[in-house]
Amino acid sequence: MNTDTINPRTGKPIRIVAALGGNALEDKELPPTAESQLLVAKKTAEHLADMSCRGYEIAVVHGNGPQIGRILLASEYAKDVTAPMPFDVCGAMSQGYIGYHLQQALSQALYKRKRFVPVVTVITQVAVDPKDPAFEKPSKPIGPFYSLEEAERLQKEKGWGLVEDSGRGWRRVVPSPKPHTIIEIGTIKTLWHTTITIACGGGGIPVIIRPDNTLEGVAAVIDKDLAAEKLAEDMDADVLLILTEVEKVYLNFNQPDQKALDNLTTDLARKYIEEGHFPPGSMLPKMEAAVKFASSRPGRKSIITSLYAACDALAGKTGTVICSEEALDVQI
Amino acid sequence: MNTDTINPRTGKPIRIVAALGGNALEDKELPPTAESQLLVAKKTAEHLADMSCRGYEIAVVHGNGPQIGRILLASEYAKDVTAPMPFDVCGAMSQGYIGYHLQQALSQALYKRKRFVPVVTVITQVAVDPKDPAFEKPSKPIGPFYSLEEAERLQKEKGWGLVEDSGRGWRRVVPSPKPHTIIEIGTIKTLWHTTITIACGGGGIPVIIRPDNTLEGVAAVIDKDLAAEKLAEDMDADVLLILTEVEKVYLNFNQPDQKALDNLTTDLARKYIEEGHFPPGSMLPKMEAAVKFASSRPGRKSIITSLYAACDALAGKTGTVICSEEALDVQI
Repeated sequence: MNTDTINPRTGKPIRIVAALGGNALEDKELPPTAESQLLVAKKTAEHLADMSCRGYEIAVVHGNGPQIGRILLASEYAKDVTAPMPFDVCGAMSQGYIGYHLQQALSQALYKRKRFVPVVTVITQVAVDPKDPAFEKPSKPIGPFYSLEEAERLQKEKGWGLVEDSGRGWRRVVPSPKPHTIIEIGTIKTLWHTTITIACGGGGIPVIIRPDNTLEGVAAVIDKDLAAEKLAEDMDADVLLILTEVEKVYLNFNQPDQKALDNLTTDLARKYIEEGHFPPGSMLPKMEAAVKFASSRPGRKSIITSLYAACDALAGKTGTVICSEEALDVQI
Repeated sequence: MNTDTINPRTGKPIRIVAALGGNALEDKELPPTAESQLLVAKKTAEHLADMSCRGYEIAVVHGNGPQIGRILLASEYAKDVTAPMPFDVCGAMSQGYIGYHLQQALSQALYKRKRFVPVVTVITQVAVDPKDPAFEKPSKPIGPFYSLEEAERLQKEKGWGLVEDSGRGWRRVVPSPKPHTIIEIGTIKTLWHTTITIACGGGGIPVIIRPDNTLEGVAAVIDKDLAAEKLAEDMDADVLLILTEVEKVYLNFNQPDQKALDNLTTDLARKYIEEGHFPPGSMLPKMEAAVKFASSRPGRKSIITSLYAACDALAGKTGTVICSEEALDVQI
């Protein structure tokens, strides 16, 4: 084990929650099939295995946007032959699907490296606040496109919110509330030191806690980077590692004057967020999650980088690092 | 904690692997929807929670026959709008779907009883032997019915085995090999004492271990009672509890001379099996799993009973109990 993967303050291995972006599971050059996903998961697993081999303790959170979209599409398309699945169940199915591929690929990649760390997927429910303002304005389009006529029927029959989507038809919209409580957190904590746990897939299966303390699945999408942030706080992780397509975050991205960001304080990151530098639904939630984690306790650090650069970024060689003022000089 | 839920030999709580039959998740009076499944799972959870409250340590294995059938049906039906899922992935999806409902329902039922034991679903791969004779004669029909023309095309294009099914059309058949290795067993063991783990759902996602030690998902169905038996052996459980629709196993079931079986030795159970008393695909695999577990180490006991009678059966009041000769008098 590398000594630079030990947290000097605690003397223990540095704990990382890694949030995998869409490109960790899909390659736009390949057809969107389960077979392709497994191929991409195998590549992704190589990078995660390298990370584990350096001595870090890792938990993995993944997105599920395209996958849950296709599960829902098949489910709705086949509604005359078999009852369609509620959206929370589609989320649970996507966790099984993606978790299976990731755990198979990652345990393989670790085996090749003679690092015998078990990898498992824990089906994870994440409670949201029923009073979250997101419930008042559902904004996240999901599933197939409908005609106006179908949309009106679905609105009436199922109480769905539907919006017209850029001239291509009508789509159901669901709210995107903030993660509040990870229901299975106790078990994920139990596993942390011995196991690489894949948890909170797709941001978690969204549930609300009713007044009698029972849980109820809801049709909603929890941002996976915010769920990873919550997991990282709850696990008392040292690093929230948000893996995306770019090695660094940019100001004026794709403009002639684009500027890569290296180390920045939470204050500066907040300023850039307020100035509107980051597009919503893309870099904005990542930056928000990164700032939230880095501000949550002294010494915590967020890194936004690509899967390929992850090990280098953890070693301080690349990536965009967000931490509090005091932590800027401390290498963990 | 009841003292009669302590194993007198070890001084520790009695460990149970409970295998849930189809009626634990579906009620034939209700439509086959996810909403109905959740209702049935809640009833099932009450019985499992009662068991946990008595002090037993429990792991849960469930079937997935009807659920994976419907997932496959939707997937194949929607093949023109989204790529169909391979059968192993359908299994992973069914583990997410059913595990989510069971863990939500069971943690609820425990909460009501002020027993704060966490419940989680672990996505589980179960390796089978590629040389298992079952691969030579696939026998388990899965998924939709096809016309002869479609069947011939699928046989050619995908190499599927297809059989004519009682005049209703052609169906794909897959092999039903024996469970050999539970890949995630280490983690399930780690969780055993603190957590109710739902594992090996549907018998596990079938994989083969290739010569280079990589795993590969295969289209197969592992009997869930045999997978539960394997899990019970690996976990060093005391009891394999096979929950089905009947309170006891019968000889000459549904005949005027039907005879309920109470306690029987593994030798007698084997004799009845050889005499052909139990129908294949129904009570036979349950009896085989029960005999295998009860023979695997002295003191191990198998019980076949209904969900409703489970607590009474564990207390020795009902159910069909299979154990070795020496163990017949010992109450655990």
